[in-house]
Amino acid sequence: MKNQVAIHEQERVDDLLTHELGIIQSEEVFSFSMDAVLLARFARVPNHGKILDLCTGNGVIPLLLSTRTKAKIEGIEIQPRLADMARRSVEMNGLGDQITIREGDLRELVKETGHGVYDAITVNPPYMPLTGGDVKINAHQAIARHEVHCTLEEVISASMRLVRPGGKVTMVHKPQRLGEILTVFRQYRLEPKLIRFVHPRQEAEANMVLIEALRDGKPDMRVLPPLIVYDKQGEYCPEIMNIYYGSKEGRA
Amino acid sequence: MKNQVAIHEQERVDDLLTHELGIIQSEEVFSFSMDAVLLARFARVPNHGKILDLCTGNGVIPLLLSTRTKAKIEGIEIQPRLADMARRSVEMNGLGDQITIREGDLRELVKETGHGVYDAITVNPPYMPLTGGDVKINAHQAIARHEVHCTLEEVISASMRLVRPGGKVTMVHKPQRLGEILTVFRQYRLEPKLIRFVHPRQEAEANMVLIEALRDGKPDMRVLPPLIVYDKQGEYCPEIMNIYYGSKEGRA
Repeated sequence: MKNQVAIHEQERVDDLLTHELGIIQSEEVFSFSMDAVLLARFARVPNHGKILDLCTGNGVIPLLLSTRTKAKIEGIEIQPRLADMARRSVEMNGLGDQITIREGDLRELVKETGHGVYDAITVNPPYMPLTGGDVKINAHQAIARHEVHCTLEEVISASMRLVRPGGKVTMVHKPQRLGEILTVFRQYRLEPKLIRFVHPRQEAEANMVLIEALRDGKPDMRVLPPLIVYDKQGEYCPEIMNIYYGSKEGRA
Repeated sequence: MKNQVAIHEQERVDDLLTHELGIIQSEEVFSFSMDAVLLARFARVPNHGKILDLCTGNGVIPLLLSTRTKAKIEGIEIQPRLADMARRSVEMNGLGDQITIREGDLRELVKETGHGVYDAITVNPPYMPLTGGDVKINAHQAIARHEVHCTLEEVISASMRLVRPGGKVTMVHKPQRLGEILTVFRQYRLEPKLIRFVHPRQEAEANMVLIEALRDGKPDMRVLPPLIVYDKQGEYCPEIMNIYYGSKEGRA
């Protein structure tokens, strides 16, 4: 850690396992999961220019991306408590020159920034449609997981407006919603070009999907080799080990 | 083989490796590929009722399905020479009571049959869009591989009209066109519910995709474990061996 920052009650500092980065987390509010780590590695981000991470949470994706690019990275988060955690993590790691955390509503962002100003967008959105009674609207966890503040379509339409023509939008989501995701991407002129499915084990159904779409791209999709998380012995497969631990040498 | 039928010049009889079925093939005109075998195994067909196979070629899919169901199976093929090959294969195997081969245009079929009369539809359509100069319009192979007589959208819209509400449409296609496939399926109220990708090797991109869609289904997709064709030694993986050779005992 480069700088001392305030760590509040019920928060802890976790190791991001790469480039000696740390991140402020809280069981009660938000902790990142494997989905974010896989997205940050899957995303093919430019070396320079501007990257935007929507639904940035505690800033895990901007922090991880900072090890792979010299581009400026912005994260936007609607929950003040999470945006504050993310800002303190950025400061703690001495990354204030590269990463900016905005507190705000992604649906309104284009009014401030203008259209097509980002070279790439990443997003780990809430996965679950808002179906009524089963969600406590005020819980931080519920906002991160359920479409309380924005639907899939709102995330995708905002992405289309914010990314430049030819720029990439990269998302992690649940395979259950793949039909809807691809339909809505294409409806907003974001053509899905690259997909990778994540299977917990070789013999298991996919439980995550990583998607890269190109603004105004032509239809032509590649489905990458499956990413298998655990081997037959229940240990992480080599590729997962490499994603979590292998980048210590640094690639930026 | 149950019955003697005429075998024309340049034709040969191949073994379908299950239930002592044979099939008339011709290098010059049409030979089935792994895609058809995988589709015939992947399709979850009803035990009774009516199944339709579009773009049936030399009838490989109806023949293979006949080992798994007592349903009546129809195949439709636009090329007279292929429809004739398929009819002779049906006769040769003594399956005339179960399988009927129609020679005709799938786009016109609903006028003869009426709407929603099939419980399930299978289809291994031409994979390649018609792009102009690179296709010899009159070649049998070109018609089987390129969208000469029907586009993806025409196949899907015909399927929607022919299958009953709640019935299944199962397709094999190329992952390159997955975005388009899922979009058009959903546009025609065929909701993709089950997908399986086929990878030639564990570390290779998918080169086939198997898709099951449900007429008027609700969005909720499952992505099955990857189907890997060859192991590290270049031998068929056990699941492929089982698909090709494992059903000799019979499952119908």
